[in-house]
Amino acid sequence: MSEVIATYRLFDRNGNFEKKAEGIALGLTIGSWTDLPHLEQEQLKKHKGGVVSIQETGRETAEGKEADITIAYPAANFSADLPAILVTVFGKLSLDGVIRLMDLDFSHDLAKRFPGPKYGVEGIRERTGVYGRPLVMSIFKGVIGRDLSYMEKQLRAQLEGGIDIVKDDEILFDNKLTSFEERLKLGQQVIAESGKKALYAVNLTGRTSDLKEKARRGIELGATAYLFNVFAYGLDVLQELAEDRDIPVPIMAHPAVSGAFTSAPYHGFSTELMLGKLVRMAGADFTLFPSPYGSVALEREAALKTAEMALEESIYKQTFPVPSAGIHPGLVPVLFEDFGIDSIINAGGGVHGHPNGAAGGGRAFRQAVDAVTAGRTLEEAAKNREDLRAALELWGTGK
Amino acid sequence: MSEVIATYRLFDRNGNFEKKAEGIALGLTIGSWTDLPHLEQEQLKKHKGGVVSIQETGRETAEGKEADITIAYPAANFSADLPAILVTVFGKLSLDGVIRLMDLDFSHDLAKRFPGPKYGVEGIRERTGVYGRPLVMSIFKGVIGRDLSYMEKQLRAQLEGGIDIVKDDEILFDNKLTSFEERLKLGQQVIAESGKKALYAVNLTGRTSDLKEKARRGIELGATAYLFNVFAYGLDVLQELAEDRDIPVPIMAHPAVSGAFTSAPYHGFSTELMLGKLVRMAGADFTLFPSPYGSVALEREAALKTAEMALEESIYKQTFPVPSAGIHPGLVPVLFEDFGIDSIINAGGGVHGHPNGAAGGGRAFRQAVDAVTAGRTLEEAAKNREDLRAALELWGTGK
Repeated sequence: MSEVIATYRLFDRNGNFEKKAEGIALGLTIGSWTDLPHLEQEQLKKHKGGVVSIQETGRETAEGKEADITIAYPAANFSADLPAILVTVFGKLSLDGVIRLMDLDFSHDLAKRFPGPKYGVEGIRERTGVYGRPLVMSIFKGVIGRDLSYMEKQLRAQLEGGIDIVKDDEILFDNKLTSFEERLKLGQQVIAESGKKALYAVNLTGRTSDLKEKARRGIELGATAYLFNVFAYGLDVLQELAEDRDIPVPIMAHPAVSGAFTSAPYHGFSTELMLGKLVRMAGADFTLFPSPYGSVALEREAALKTAEMALEESIYKQTFPVPSAGIHPGLVPVLFEDFGIDSIINAGGGVHGHPNGAAGGGRAFRQAVDAVTAGRTLEEAAKNREDLRAALELWGTGK
Repeated sequence: MSEVIATYRLFDRNGNFEKKAEGIALGLTIGSWTDLPHLEQEQLKKHKGGVVSIQETGRETAEGKEADITIAYPAANFSADLPAILVTVFGKLSLDGVIRLMDLDFSHDLAKRFPGPKYGVEGIRERTGVYGRPLVMSIFKGVIGRDLSYMEKQLRAQLEGGIDIVKDDEILFDNKLTSFEERLKLGQQVIAESGKKALYAVNLTGRTSDLKEKARRGIELGATAYLFNVFAYGLDVLQELAEDRDIPVPIMAHPAVSGAFTSAPYHGFSTELMLGKLVRMAGADFTLFPSPYGSVALEREAALKTAEMALEESIYKQTFPVPSAGIHPGLVPVLFEDFGIDSIINAGGGVHGHPNGAAGGGRAFRQAVDAVTAGRTLEEAAKNREDLRAALELWGTGK
């Protein structure tokens, strides 16, 4: 059957989950059932929501007993777009007390209506020529109020350090000092001069209906990737960018604003659903999410699940997981262990704060990655790797 | 100064709010300050975020002491669009532990860049010819899986009952049985035949970049208002619809999905900011939000503040507040008291569940409104008003 199955975590003081689940399944579809004449039941059957399962977790919180319930919504009730699906499964319901949408499962025919990543892990490896190891990414630092020459220095240093992908800060918008166009031209020039296949993810910003045209214009100026604050716009906007054949570069989904609906324990959406499954479905080639290590930390389990959903077997290409914040070279073995080879090691301060500058920071990361890939400890490798040694001295190893 | 001032509610076990506030003000703008050379400080001064105030609320929660802090973000740092502003003030920060964005204040020059409602309270009164009382609105009930004739009966009954505005259910999307176009044609025909100036808010749904064209096409078919699930799309998409001169009808913002980021007590956005201030700024002529009375209830204070922000003196036209859910005719005196004349009385079950059908429900509401307007109690008025009497018998009076 063509449907979407939603898993909710909810609470009830009396543990009366059957009634609650039935109320949702009917209330969010045809409204009523038992009091309908047989003929109308026949007519409405294929629109009726159904309770698939109810599982008490055994936990008891201040909100009452906890259970995960799953409800099936027939696709006959909505158009095949994420706004319609989100309104169906969590429109009114999001306002109905303490409830969290944990997961959505789409039947195959419905899933096929969504694009998934245009390039994905494999396509990005082709574009960067990097195989057999995580890619190393870094972010421009403190560029607000600075001019192009300031960015140029940073970009050169990062590329010199062997960084595979450089990204804009998500709070860098179109501005007079470093406009979208000027940044793109700079990026193309500096990358060309470096002789490397690095990507530069430029922040695609502005009014919603201008984004496609702007992205296409950027392609003509040599754009190699776009950063996109999907949750300040909407998942469907990401999908439209991903579907556009005239925007033939990977898109990096930034989690900005998503904490508003993922951070509370018993409300909103699970992080893995939003930053793992749905951004992938909508077409993100990369998904950034808080790492479990930094000060802005995500629970380890949610971070691992997010990466898992970005990579798991599905009809879509794989989305590169990018656990971010608090990353320094000493964490590379932990990153390998937690996120494996198909992930991006992404650092800001861990690159720019290196005693030998961003180039040193980049080298230290690459040396750490090479060490782990070769099965050596960082301490061993650091013996004849000056940049890695300096990084370990400054930041230590492990979490 | 051109800026946006954000008020956050946050928590700290040690009550060290100064450090936290300074960290936000710098971290979300220029990054660092004290260690910069004088010349760079001069250059970056106009980009530097600043702490405006820190007010401990005196409350102590499980998260620590509570405080409201306000931070000013120079407009020089972002483009004048809501995605850029939300990413600036609550992008990374939304992911940073327990923090809630309570309010945003825009300097006049920045506020002027946003449209506000195209029609607002006054324009809607002109279009409906209703003055001196709240408007009465009702919603189609259980139309999923039903055909046009089913909707037609409901629409006729609601209009016959004196309903001023009829709206689609937010979970009714474009579908074969009752397509967007067919619903519009039906609405135009039935309203014309009724001889009334009622509005019918059709749900504007589909892919983001198709919305404008679809809305314009709807205008040609006689659309009188649009319902829009703004939070499944994005505030900027609402703004683009509001700014479009070829969509000359009022837009009704539905709160679907917004509970994901307003319902948790210490995370996300305040309801009044999202459903009151920002939807108005972006151009909603109506804003629906949970009433404080129903089973899906909003705290009374948040509901009143939402209505206040929709109506308060500003450079924008007023947005009609529509407290929704759990509304029946017996609540009309309470609605007058809480929300005043410039509000919409919106009911689903309270219209359709009336013993005399939707027409009777509509009449009961109008009779209740007339009674309160004339300074009479509902009980008095019900003596010679059969529909009101039946409603009070069924649902009682008060909350």
